[in-house]
Amino acid sequence: MNELSYRELITVALREDQADFDVTSLAVVPAEAKGQAQIVAKREGVLAGLPVAAAVFAAVDPGVEWESGLTDGARLRPGLVVATIRGRLRAILAAERVALNFLQHLSGIATATAALVERVKDYPVKILDTRKPTPGLRALEKYAVRVGGGANHRLSLADMILIKDNHIAVAGGVTAAVRRARAAAPPFLLVEVEAENEDQVREALAAGADVIMLDNMSPAEMRRMVGLVAGRAKLEASGNITPENVTEVAATGVDYISVGYITHSAPAVDLSLEVSPL
Amino acid sequence: MNELSYRELITVALREDQADFDVTSLAVVPAEAKGQAQIVAKREGVLAGLPVAAAVFAAVDPGVEWESGLTDGARLRPGLVVATIRGRLRAILAAERVALNFLQHLSGIATATAALVERVKDYPVKILDTRKPTPGLRALEKYAVRVGGGANHRLSLADMILIKDNHIAVAGGVTAAVRRARAAAPPFLLVEVEAENEDQVREALAAGADVIMLDNMSPAEMRRMVGLVAGRAKLEASGNITPENVTEVAATGVDYISVGYITHSAPAVDLSLEVSPL
Amino acid sequence: MNELSYRELITVALREDQADFDVTSLAVVPAEAKGQAQIVAKREGVLAGLPVAAAVFAAVDPGVEWESGLTDGARLRPGLVVATIRGRLRAILAAERVALNFLQHLSGIATATAALVERVKDYPVKILDTRKPTPGLRALEKYAVRVGGGANHRLSLADMILIKDNHIAVAGGVTAAVRRARAAAPPFLLVEVEAENEDQVREALAAGADVIMLDNMSPAEMRRMVGLVAGRAKLEASGNITPENVTEVAATGVDYISVGYITHSAPAVDLSLEVSPL
Amino acid sequence: MNELSYRELITVALREDQADFDVTSLAVVPAEAKGQAQIVAKREGVLAGLPVAAAVFAAVDPGVEWESGLTDGARLRPGLVVATIRGRLRAILAAERVALNFLQHLSGIATATAALVERVKDYPVKILDTRKPTPGLRALEKYAVRVGGGANHRLSLADMILIKDNHIAVAGGVTAAVRRARAAAPPFLLVEVEAENEDQVREALAAGADVIMLDNMSPAEMRRMVGLVAGRAKLEASGNITPENVTEVAATGVDYISVGYITHSAPAVDLSLEVSPL
Amino acid sequence: MNELSYRELITVALREDQADFDVTSLAVVPAEAKGQAQIVAKREGVLAGLPVAAAVFAAVDPGVEWESGLTDGARLRPGLVVATIRGRLRAILAAERVALNFLQHLSGIATATAALVERVKDYPVKILDTRKPTPGLRALEKYAVRVGGGANHRLSLADMILIKDNHIAVAGGVTAAVRRARAAAPPFLLVEVEAENEDQVREALAAGADVIMLDNMSPAEMRRMVGLVAGRAKLEASGNITPENVTEVAATGVDYISVGYITHSAPAVDLSLEVSPL
Amino acid sequence: MNELSYRELITVALREDQADFDVTSLAVVPAEAKGQAQIVAKREGVLAGLPVAAAVFAAVDPGVEWESGLTDGARLRPGLVVATIRGRLRAILAAERVALNFLQHLSGIATATAALVERVKDYPVKILDTRKPTPGLRALEKYAVRVGGGANHRLSLADMILIKDNHIAVAGGVTAAVRRARAAAPPFLLVEVEAENEDQVREALAAGADVIMLDNMSPAEMRRMVGLVAGRAKLEASGNITPENVTEVAATGVDYISVGYITHSAPAVDLSLEVSPL
Repeated sequence: MNELSYRELITVALREDQADFDVTSLAVVPAEAKGQAQIVAKREGVLAGLPVAAAVFAAVDPGVEWESGLTDGARLRPGLVVATIRGRLRAILAAERVALNFLQHLSGIATATAALVERVKDYPVKILDTRKPTPGLRALEKYAVRVGGGANHRLSLADMILIKDNHIAVAGGVTAAVRRARAAAPPFLLVEVEAENEDQVREALAAGADVIMLDNMSPAEMRRMVGLVAGRAKLEASGNITPENVTEVAATGVDYISVGYITHSAPAVDLSLEVSPL
Repeated sequence: MNELSYRELITVALREDQADFDVTSLAVVPAEAKGQAQIVAKREGVLAGLPVAAAVFAAVDPGVEWESGLTDGARLRPGLVVATIRGRLRAILAAERVALNFLQHLSGIATATAALVERVKDYPVKILDTRKPTPGLRALEKYAVRVGGGANHRLSLADMILIKDNHIAVAGGVTAAVRRARAAAPPFLLVEVEAENEDQVREALAAGADVIMLDNMSPAEMRRMVGLVAGRAKLEASGNITPENVTEVAATGVDYISVGYITHSAPAVDLSLEVSPL
Repeated sequence: MNELSYRELITVALREDQADFDVTSLAVVPAEAKGQAQIVAKREGVLAGLPVAAAVFAAVDPGVEWESGLTDGARLRPGLVVATIRGRLRAILAAERVALNFLQHLSGIATATAALVERVKDYPVKILDTRKPTPGLRALEKYAVRVGGGANHRLSLADMILIKDNHIAVAGGVTAAVRRARAAAPPFLLVEVEAENEDQVREALAAGADVIMLDNMSPAEMRRMVGLVAGRAKLEASGNITPENVTEVAATGVDYISVGYITHSAPAVDLSLEVSPL
Repeated sequence: MNELSYRELITVALREDQADFDVTSLAVVPAEAKGQAQIVAKREGVLAGLPVAAAVFAAVDPGVEWESGLTDGARLRPGLVVATIRGRLRAILAAERVALNFLQHLSGIATATAALVERVKDYPVKILDTRKPTPGLRALEKYAVRVGGGANHRLSLADMILIKDNHIAVAGGVTAAVRRARAAAPPFLLVEVEAENEDQVREALAAGADVIMLDNMSPAEMRRMVGLVAGRAKLEASGNITPENVTEVAATGVDYISVGYITHSAPAVDLSLEVSPL
Repeated sequence: MNELSYRELITVALREDQADFDVTSLAVVPAEAKGQAQIVAKREGVLAGLPVAAAVFAAVDPGVEWESGLTDGARLRPGLVVATIRGRLRAILAAERVALNFLQHLSGIATATAALVERVKDYPVKILDTRKPTPGLRALEKYAVRVGGGANHRLSLADMILIKDNHIAVAGGVTAAVRRARAAAPPFLLVEVEAENEDQVREALAAGADVIMLDNMSPAEMRRMVGLVAGRAKLEASGNITPENVTEVAATGVDYISVGYITHSAPAVDLSLEVSPL
Repeated sequence: MNELSYRELITVALREDQADFDVTSLAVVPAEAKGQAQIVAKREGVLAGLPVAAAVFAAVDPGVEWESGLTDGARLRPGLVVATIRGRLRAILAAERVALNFLQHLSGIATATAALVERVKDYPVKILDTRKPTPGLRALEKYAVRVGGGANHRLSLADMILIKDNHIAVAGGVTAAVRRARAAAPPFLLVEVEAENEDQVREALAAGADVIMLDNMSPAEMRRMVGLVAGRAKLEASGNITPENVTEVAATGVDYISVGYITHSAPAVDLSLEVSPL
């Protein structure tokens, strides 16, 4: 990840907060007053988004100094100082909320991901995200998933062929759909097929799918499919995965477990900014 | 809310999903194949974001028809048909995920808000959001809060004076901070002061605050402050409000309860799109 | 105000002037020729827009040095050196006109505002702007009003409730309109009501308006309304205010005088840029 | 002029007015209430900007109908109905101010231009604008000048060679500057030279300037230069032209009179919008 | 491909041509004059870009009608009418050049691609593009390649792992590089390795590459590598492919032939627009 | 040319290459690994685009150092080092392709232009470009033409009046068209008329055209027109000019030769980037 992933979004976020007209600070804080602020964790979690938060302060005032002894992926605990910021207080206060909003949101995703990764650490399985991140934040959220120890499923509609129930219905069956995909899609993309039952798994396998998504199957069914496929395709468990059942799913022997909620429903990690005038 | 709140974000979202190069549908679905799709709720909740979802399909293909018997605020239940879409299947499938992502996210916020509103319905109190929405989605998320029956706290740094601990520290006290604000800020803005204890409440009141934020106080303390202030300023409860304690907070007699998690941590509401070729 | 208020507008302005293809300087001035230029005032006025002008030169060439002993709000007189610029002459000449256009326009607004403020300085009244600035320049023009000693009326449609004749007509009266606003609008916004005559002022007062706009009333009427309202609401004089009558209006005892022409019709303040090769 | 000149600026203008969150209308006006509004002139002038105003309403709500019997260039008089708008009242009221701001500003420019054109109508001279329009509005303001009967001087730095005092100083004289320009600039551009006195006029003429700008000369001097040049180059009068002296300047026989104030200092023409519910 | 691939680029292109100020047509063509124009091919080739050209006219004037009996991929011959356009002549003439520029450029790419495809039609090989399209036009140019019968290599840095000489040098060998990629990159991406000689091909094969790029090898070498690899990986020929040698390369048995010049050096196909007033 | 010509296009180009998610380098190259890279010419040509290439690396990582002993216009030969880049290898590799794409494309245009300029160097004629550059790259491509020794014809529709066959048809003849243009267009623009035969040349000359375009005439015809016009207007040869016939055309005595293919069909100049870890 680099600035290209967030430069424009930071501008949008500062503009929607009207950070160029912070009426409170403009009235209460002298124009040249300088100070120091610390971003402090208020609960446990995994940190993600430091470069974004730093860039928010720089976008409001390039003269603000940012210092942090941590890097993304660090474990948070209540009271841990995440970063120290020095400079004009008006700028620090105008940038505060937007910087924290990014940091809390991305750390929430890294934290939720890491919790799942921890629960499956005894199995050779990868936790994957989905194509369900918040609109406009996909690059950042997929980055946070990686920070949390997860891996990225496809980024967009363009970097993998994923034949789902709707495609199968239109094509008239799994075999026909895979054949069309192999013939007409860009050649250097893997083909995944969504399967809801054993028949579809068998058909996908026969059609030469690289990956088969086991959609909403029970752990018992998944285990059976793992035996049936026997390594001839990769298997991805999908649907209704929770921290409670993820270990059981991992134990079935699937290769990947994809989880939507780590990007669309992960609760934010609470952080605060505390100022001390210099 | 109107198109200005989401037109550009929809473009960003479709571009990050590369909806102009859906390799699967381009290969599997014939260019002119038409069909019908239904968006169906998969759990209970409050619907929000219909105009945004409709605009996503139109952005991919203006020829797609959208029809819905519901309006934002409708109660969802599993199986409820939210909207019916007709048109070129390639366009419907390319737009599907982005449209659902908006709908699931905004419905999640409306649902979380409505749950709180329901729990305080016997008290003359309003549930408010905060300045903590997801970066880039503030207008949409504040709209979803209203759909859920909540009200909006300030939109941005520019539409209210909110004197927080950091400002008080810089100004050298609540009284000085309020005086500066009244003198130098735009005149038609209310002044709110954050107070952590009775002394600060007293000082804020004496300084003429229009609203006093009771920050992280216990319900017992809040109740005492309600008595102390006796209607001379509005009181806003803030900090660590949950569905579990919100009714108790409402019962203290505060005027407003502001809650960050309804925008930054509300879980998405699950919806799906099901296609049937025509 | 910070860079967020003008960064993008500067790009637009330089592009519409095609500052990347200044055919005259490219042909006449050697690529590496350096020089010094001074921005000089040509008439009296109040300076506004220095940071914007500096940013224009930096946008064309980050190597250009900008130096100014003045700050916004300084009094201009013919011949006063406003700033000294050093660097590549091609860059200085390509940026010149756009920089001056900003400076002349914003100084014009500050000057017009200051002239009004001066005329009412013996009264406890504030000069306000309106929602009539030039499209695309609102943040800058409202800033220039503050530089000139004025205050900002609402920034946009979102930060105050202002019930005008059209709203009253739709709602079926002032009382109903105010009631709806109090019930349905965000709670932390003031309510202003436009009144054209005594009846409407009485009704607005009874309905609990925070501010009443006396629309196009004569000074005599205003004075009567000041007596009638007796401090129970703030009063804003509006409509046809000119430098000639503003003192008389201030003498009526109103709290605010809002004036559209300071942003939409203030004449530019003439400034020039004079180059001396090094 | 077509939509390319204003589409983006309209979005910026509506966003800075937060036309997607008109708190007053959202609270006071029912969502589906429809009505009719008329834009009415309040003083005399020349109308400019109708297509822009129409596009503002359409940008807020494509369902709003716009009807006007006038076209740009029409003479305004108090009470004249400029346009009639029908549709959802919330949309009409959210768009009102931005639409009027464009119309008032552009009509102000057309009006100021037309006043000058009228005063020189007995002479074969053209009134020209300058490169001093408001930043971001150049295309629109140059259009308004044409509507007012003026003509456009160069649009930008790229469409004419204009050798000013600063260029002459760097090049070491008029002759050298013109020679460089003819050699190195794009070939299909005219060359204009700024001259402050007879010597410079003679040198510019000898150097082969297509146009000579008579900078801040008195009418007597200009008349002399007209005789001296005798049609061998076009002559442009520039500097301190006012409605008071423009006829005298025209009478000197110059070909063009360029005037900065018609774009940077023209007062807005007052218009209002009056709603009647249907 | 849909509008998302070109909507913004069309705006940029029309703006750089200042299609809102076509001084010639504004002066010479009456405002309301209507007419008909035909786009006519002037040489042979393969047509690509029709939807883009149609959108250019619509962007200038939504009232312009576009009609074409062809679709992208059609064979052009001198004199063939590609499309007929009807509407306001000013709009048609303002849009003409930009529309033709798109059409000529994209048809040039489709034509160059089709010429290669034709020469290898007797072999089971695919012609691929590269990551070398013109900056800003990648989606369009990759579309034109598909129109010409080619297939798309990776779209961007994100949708395939391609280990080139620079990566191998940094990682300390092919084996290490592939191992790192399999461990750390997103799991659903193919791994291609660039190989310049037999040793590297062997190492890439042993490391488990999905695709091996034979970089600048002679046809004889390629043929040997095809035998050596024997289907255990896909083989892509790359480097210095021309229409003259492509058949010989195809005959070696490689699976893919990638060619940079079809996007970065294909000559435009000449087309013209001819107007007839109605 | 300055940054305004390419800043935004660089962002677009890096985004379409997803340079913030270079999956190969992220997996294979350690985050902090630094190195040096050289851009090396692989064939002969004229260099153009150095500042753009440098800006691409800076856009990905401002910490990357760029060093070049050459300037645009330098002659390339195989093996010549064009620039040396030092910094984080991930950044260098992520920027590589986009930087080279700009450099190869612009150098191709400069090279094609210089080849023509070389062939006409014995004649007092200028090689001109057209209004046919690649959409979105006009400023850059016109710059590359100048680097190659050519001159720029009009930049856009706004900076010259060019009356073509379509305009003549609508106006009812050359004379009428020129008269309308002189009357209604901005006054400081030259008027060029396209002529296909002697009659049109005579009519254009009589109508007072500043420049006459000899469209698709044979060298013999052109020579005749040169004699006929005898310096009373400038003459531009246009249509089907190639390196093969350009000298013959120059010998006819025309003033300008305009050539579309130097921007729309010039083959890219091959360059490569070679990394050596530090």
